[in-house]
Amino acid sequence: MCKGHLEPFSEIGYRVVEPPIGWLMRLPFERAGLISLAAGFTDFETLPVEEIREICEALLCDSWRARQALQYGTTAGLAQLRELTASRFNELEEDAVRKLGASKTLPSQIHSEQVVICNGSQQMLYLLTEVLCNSGDIVIVEDPTYFVFLGIAQQFGLCCRAVRMGANGLDIGHLDQVCSELEKSGQAWRVKFLYMVSYYQNPTGRSTDFRLKQLVLERLAQLEKYAGHKIYLVEDAAYREMGYSGSSWPSALSSETAGDRVIYIGTYSKPFATGIRLGFGILPDAVRQKVLFVKNNHDFGSANFLQFIMAEAIKSGLYDRHLSIIKARYAEKAALMDRQLRTLLPPFVSWRRPDGGLYFWLELPTGLDTGVHSQLFRRALELGVLYVPGEMCYAEDPVRPKPTHQIRLSFGNPDDREIVLGVERLAAAIRSTV
Amino acid sequence: MCKGHLEPFSEIGYRVVEPPIGWLMRLPFERAGLISLAAGFTDFETLPVEEIREICEALLCDSWRARQALQYGTTAGLAQLRELTASRFNELEEDAVRKLGASKTLPSQIHSEQVVICNGSQQMLYLLTEVLCNSGDIVIVEDPTYFVFLGIAQQFGLCCRAVRMGANGLDIGHLDQVCSELEKSGQAWRVKFLYMVSYYQNPTGRSTDFRLKQLVLERLAQLEKYAGHKIYLVEDAAYREMGYSGSSWPSALSSETAGDRVIYIGTYSKPFATGIRLGFGILPDAVRQKVLFVKNNHDFGSANFLQFIMAEAIKSGLYDRHLSIIKARYAEKAALMDRQLRTLLPPFVSWRRPDGGLYFWLELPTGLDTGVHSQLFRRALELGVLYVPGEMCYAEDPVRPKPTHQIRLSFGNPDDREIVLGVERLAAAIRSTV
Repeated sequence: MCKGHLEPFSEIGYRVVEPPIGWLMRLPFERAGLISLAAGFTDFETLPVEEIREICEALLCDSWRARQALQYGTTAGLAQLRELTASRFNELEEDAVRKLGASKTLPSQIHSEQVVICNGSQQMLYLLTEVLCNSGDIVIVEDPTYFVFLGIAQQFGLCCRAVRMGANGLDIGHLDQVCSELEKSGQAWRVKFLYMVSYYQNPTGRSTDFRLKQLVLERLAQLEKYAGHKIYLVEDAAYREMGYSGSSWPSALSSETAGDRVIYIGTYSKPFATGIRLGFGILPDAVRQKVLFVKNNHDFGSANFLQFIMAEAIKSGLYDRHLSIIKARYAEKAALMDRQLRTLLPPFVSWRRPDGGLYFWLELPTGLDTGVHSQLFRRALELGVLYVPGEMCYAEDPVRPKPTHQIRLSFGNPDDREIVLGVERLAAAIRSTV
Repeated sequence: MCKGHLEPFSEIGYRVVEPPIGWLMRLPFERAGLISLAAGFTDFETLPVEEIREICEALLCDSWRARQALQYGTTAGLAQLRELTASRFNELEEDAVRKLGASKTLPSQIHSEQVVICNGSQQMLYLLTEVLCNSGDIVIVEDPTYFVFLGIAQQFGLCCRAVRMGANGLDIGHLDQVCSELEKSGQAWRVKFLYMVSYYQNPTGRSTDFRLKQLVLERLAQLEKYAGHKIYLVEDAAYREMGYSGSSWPSALSSETAGDRVIYIGTYSKPFATGIRLGFGILPDAVRQKVLFVKNNHDFGSANFLQFIMAEAIKSGLYDRHLSIIKARYAEKAALMDRQLRTLLPPFVSWRRPDGGLYFWLELPTGLDTGVHSQLFRRALELGVLYVPGEMCYAEDPVRPKPTHQIRLSFGNPDDREIVLGVERLAAAIRSTV
């Protein structure tokens, strides 16, 4: 034994690995001229510089408020921002339920005490996993799903069970099958939650309709009987406010069967400014308490200055004004990418133009490998375009091999020229590979 | 079994508790007129409003830089801020070694690649504990120590072994005794690091001199032989830049025996603005890699906007200008509190006026209980003053009972009137209790 030289890592320390997406994101910095359609970054030109300048000026000229903003806050977050978040959510939800037209459904009314502000919605995902999951526990995920959540699951030694995505969200038949298997094999007690990115999902761009959310909750309630404990539905609504036409389904919180089994996560980071980096959770009491205790140990509260800026952005209407600008801009970019894909891609590639969010999900023929070691990926790199291989969005699930024939494209960050040129290069790569 | 109603918490979720300090911090909001000498908040009047206004204005008028600041950054942090942090550290260290006058000591020269920016130094403490410690592992801590670190240790199920503080830092004889016990009882393999708040410690205000840091490293190297792995010295230098006279000992990184066994933590939060909430770690390669992977799952990087502000503050000299202002202010407040304590407190209470940081540590006679259930604490509350009972700063250590006769007072946040009045009330409470 080589005494004194071994690293004394924890299980987490030994288990955690570099995110597979990590080197992909670094590539554009290393290769000049490479167009990245990979990163989930947001549009550069429309970042709300003017809005934030205006807010900072007003805030920093009011010396009393400014000092409060530059002092510590509380672990749960700025009261004003929690209130604005709650009322904003209530409005969105009322609007969504009204549009749904279902006479029996009542919109969820949440209170500001249920809201916890955090460092982007990412931190809330992390905190939830920490307070709910032990190594060896099971989480049910969409197939495909948000890859950084898969990083969290890997770090904590969780087992993911993946449920196929249909056109309108989770394939409920497949969910039933997965749950039945878990029940029969005596593994239900290890299931802690189902993770769903419910609006304009990353990576597929699909939204889960309200009826499906209800069905999911019903199926989880059944699974609970075998589990002997609550099984939460974690609804990640990160892209909710980024629907181009503005309307959206109600959240699972408005479901009659929601009880205190729905955990809702939202963000101001992507829809406003990723450099401001604030998100929030709407949490049932028991979970919220634990999340706050752990967040206290993380950082005892997110940066107060950012919270004052964000509260002012919402209150003043600048956030809404900015939303309408970026929604129009993303709709435009999505249309441009769609046109370019339709013009240049061979007919065996299919996709659906998203009506919100930042992503296209391309389906190539099974067998046409898109992975990082594939001929296509290398060819695309040679031609100067980077994409996210679909396989990175799939959990390690023991019962199915990962599909390897899909591609995630993002039009968030690239400008028009890069979208046009990037798709041109991708099309050339595909043509020269098949 | 009450199926479907149990909470599915993880071990962490079940273990974590409300921080003992939590309700203490809420008290001032609930009781009008209560003077808090408890919170570690910073001085309100001197918060750098003007400085940050100037920086934000310049930053947000430069639309290219502004957009970069409002976009995602990288997990390790803004390159410019990492460089400024490294060169600032190198200057501090050179200065400290020169003042030491020891001809053999060479100041540590660190590179920006070793620096990781995080959400206050608190997040770095958390990340380090995550990547190094399993439940049941041992950390060696100062007795007393920073209580939020004790919260982290409790959450992760760690066992703390406490080493007494002498006038100039750790009691090296006691450290030797604790290490010997760990060696003899076969527990050395569970020890992961020693946690030391090395400058103007929270709560005692004491600094650990350089010679002691070297001795600690030597003793840990011995313990490593029994452990079979590295044992890190985690040097939390949170208050380093808050020494009123400006000079400070070199960090353990400049020790000849530091090797890659020293982890250094610093912060910009307390010395600049707690609402900006940035800290950093200077980490050995192996640890840095793991910390970055885990931080990627936490939040994939601290808010870029704050990092741009902080980089500009350092580069422009505004940070240094602000430091000289707050150092003078805290020196003044410390002197005021000291005068007031000397005038009013009975002779059986002793303390040392700190030359940096935010705290006084009062020693009352053993047997005079200062705890939250004590007569003194209740009396102080009745009279309208809040302090931190010393026992909250002590780890749960199986081999010694917690001392209960000390008090931490902070002069960070209260203004002159509150300091004068707060100490008056405390003195009255003590007089009416004995």
